[in-house]
Amino acid sequence: MTDIETIIAADRERLLADLAAFLGFSSVDGDTAGLEGAAAWLEERLRAVGGQPRRLETGGGPAAIYAEVGSGARALLSYTHYDVQPADPLEQWASRPFTATVRDGKLYARGAADDKGDTLARIHAVEVYRRAFGELPVHLKFFVEGEEEIGSPHLAPLAEQYPDLLRADGALWEGGGYDGNERYTLYCGVKGIAYVELVAHGASHDLHSAYAPIAPNPAWRLTRALATLKDDADNITVDGLMEHVRPPSEEEMAAMRRIPFDGLQLKTGWGLPAFINDMDDKAALVRFLTQPTCTICGLRSGFIEEGRKTVLPASALVKLDFRLVPDLTPELVHRLLRAHLDRRGFTDVAIRPMSSMIGTRSDMSAPVVQAAMASARRVYGHEPVVYPSHGGSGPMHALVQGVGTPGGIMVGVGYSGMRMHAPDENIRLDDYFRHIAFLVDFYREFAAA
Amino acid sequence: MTDIETIIAADRERLLADLAAFLGFSSVDGDTAGLEGAAAWLEERLRAVGGQPRRLETGGGPAAIYAEVGSGARALLSYTHYDVQPADPLEQWASRPFTATVRDGKLYARGAADDKGDTLARIHAVEVYRRAFGELPVHLKFFVEGEEEIGSPHLAPLAEQYPDLLRADGALWEGGGYDGNERYTLYCGVKGIAYVELVAHGASHDLHSAYAPIAPNPAWRLTRALATLKDDADNITVDGLMEHVRPPSEEEMAAMRRIPFDGLQLKTGWGLPAFINDMDDKAALVRFLTQPTCTICGLRSGFIEEGRKTVLPASALVKLDFRLVPDLTPELVHRLLRAHLDRRGFTDVAIRPMSSMIGTRSDMSAPVVQAAMASARRVYGHEPVVYPSHGGSGPMHALVQGVGTPGGIMVGVGYSGMRMHAPDENIRLDDYFRHIAFLVDFYREFAAA
Repeated sequence: MTDIETIIAADRERLLADLAAFLGFSSVDGDTAGLEGAAAWLEERLRAVGGQPRRLETGGGPAAIYAEVGSGARALLSYTHYDVQPADPLEQWASRPFTATVRDGKLYARGAADDKGDTLARIHAVEVYRRAFGELPVHLKFFVEGEEEIGSPHLAPLAEQYPDLLRADGALWEGGGYDGNERYTLYCGVKGIAYVELVAHGASHDLHSAYAPIAPNPAWRLTRALATLKDDADNITVDGLMEHVRPPSEEEMAAMRRIPFDGLQLKTGWGLPAFINDMDDKAALVRFLTQPTCTICGLRSGFIEEGRKTVLPASALVKLDFRLVPDLTPELVHRLLRAHLDRRGFTDVAIRPMSSMIGTRSDMSAPVVQAAMASARRVYGHEPVVYPSHGGSGPMHALVQGVGTPGGIMVGVGYSGMRMHAPDENIRLDDYFRHIAFLVDFYREFAAA
Repeated sequence: MTDIETIIAADRERLLADLAAFLGFSSVDGDTAGLEGAAAWLEERLRAVGGQPRRLETGGGPAAIYAEVGSGARALLSYTHYDVQPADPLEQWASRPFTATVRDGKLYARGAADDKGDTLARIHAVEVYRRAFGELPVHLKFFVEGEEEIGSPHLAPLAEQYPDLLRADGALWEGGGYDGNERYTLYCGVKGIAYVELVAHGASHDLHSAYAPIAPNPAWRLTRALATLKDDADNITVDGLMEHVRPPSEEEMAAMRRIPFDGLQLKTGWGLPAFINDMDDKAALVRFLTQPTCTICGLRSGFIEEGRKTVLPASALVKLDFRLVPDLTPELVHRLLRAHLDRRGFTDVAIRPMSSMIGTRSDMSAPVVQAAMASARRVYGHEPVVYPSHGGSGPMHALVQGVGTPGGIMVGVGYSGMRMHAPDENIRLDDYFRHIAFLVDFYREFAAA
């Protein structure tokens, strides 16, 4: 046991009680008392480690809590959130979701993994650091928002409002943890998103389908427009879009070759015999992590109940989700899509942007990435699995590269059985304490890097 | 006033009371007493004109009533129905729907136009004929079903079971009447229909759309399959389908040129600036009446509520309605569509037939068409408007050409203000009595033709 681990082990009960207190607030969207309780508790907690917390207001919604701790040449932004997913269905929890409960070395509570564990571990690590080494040698900026579970609607506006406050030399994002093979996992980025609806209109109301020889049908119009966006091999064929897709670097390719990826398990879980284009696991993983998507998430037109109705629809709607890689911004997608449709005569097909996030992928040579890898090797005892990007989307860009911070990395207290967003959300206690040790090591490593 | 009209005029009260009695039965789907009451009353009425009614059973549903009256070298089938549409919304009726009420020369009641007026007028015409000329010179076969308003599910099976009973030298169908310009209108046919669902399947459940780079999306699959079925000019491109479309004959083209068709009124009602391909009225009318369709009636896949959900759908469904012209049977459509999809690799896109009817268009030189035109000229006093086909679909083929009857024509008591299927359904009393005169003339004309 290292000195750090000894310090942590001696303080387990207090750290655990502290986390249990934080988990006691039902900080769910719409629960004003629960959200305010968690925010106030967090401010108090940040004050206790020397921060002077302030609230970054979001126009009536739960404010983001901001506080600075420590000092040093390097600034580090910590992004987490204090709001949690709703606990329903309650009857599927073995213990009460807002009463932290330990069973078999695991701590059960809504928010244990997502994201109160990550949040408090970073504060606890400051305390442990000081006890072990003295003053924190890094200028640590805590940013803890209260709207992550509803899509972080004010994150980009706050980043635009406070760029100097939030700018740092690196950022720790939420997420990360042990994978299913008990290997510690780091993510260097997330995809962006451009979610749009395309709508085609016909008559002012649904017509009797007998009129189909003479009345235009917007469902055919939309179908034909959609058919121009993808080819048979699932390539996106929106004019010029793929030109903005940066090929993975040599380092990223090497990192991906080291990722254990069980394609068969995925396919079996989906009930599918093959990936798109019958790709093998290696090709599938690279495509999954580095390529943009254009996905029909929903299609709706005319009569959609069971049975038959002979109707000619007045309108047709598709919900399209573009997952974006760096450089391919939502604005670019909106512009290229509009031009693509116009060029083919689909000027009548309207595009309604629904939500947008810019994707980001930190360079693997960035100090924050290198420091996290080094600390993970030391504390977790093995080479971490490094994902150049998460396959999903997140608002990392707004708070990191968007304000001029050169790199961010996702680290966290989770593991493959954490049941995020589900009943019986939990973390393993040992993971929590080891993650504190990792963060202590990381603070020092990053400050020195 | 002709002799016939004098006879009818002298008997108006009795004829009207008789019709009011028939309209008093609430012969709506599900109302067993109303349906049985109407059926029994009708049997009694057919018995009174010398028929020996029998019930053609439909396996538990309302039976079709069949009776033969008169004699002669030529047999004439009369198709009508004794069931009616539900009367809801009741509060929108000015008088009770099953209490026939005369206001301003109009008779208001559910079923007045559709189809008890047509049914009884044909029986009343037998009585008037006999009073004027003696024995009915035509072998008149009444077939009055009780399931028309629920889609005539047993009509084709009954036709297959009783072809000899139902076969005739011509058929009178329901429908027809005065158009909006007060011109009497005859329809020589109806379109068929092949309503199918196409379904594509992906994973066993909806996936997170982050997996789109590697998991196949059935909504794209279906969209791409659909895009092969139609071209940009709205032509059906199912391999070989259009080869089965019979061009209109010279006679049919001439008839269509005489049809008054107000395209502007239609387009204005639809809120549309133009027909498909910016067709003029003449082209639109010919396409409307003589061309098959392939219509997306409904599209459904994935997330179809308001807002956004990042989901990769497990399945995608389209409801397609093919309106069919003669020769292009539903079986042919099913076969051609399957082959078309298979040839393009869409063997995984399933076709589910939902309902089928064969279309039919009687030759305009058929005796029943010529007799109806001649009688209309004489009784209605002007050249009737003759539609080679109705734009909608109906089961005429099963009971007419399907049993070897060479032609059928739609005639009836209706007019443009009859509010069919709506509250305040009505007919004009003068139309009813004039239609009896037309039928008397027609029985003689058809017998002699």
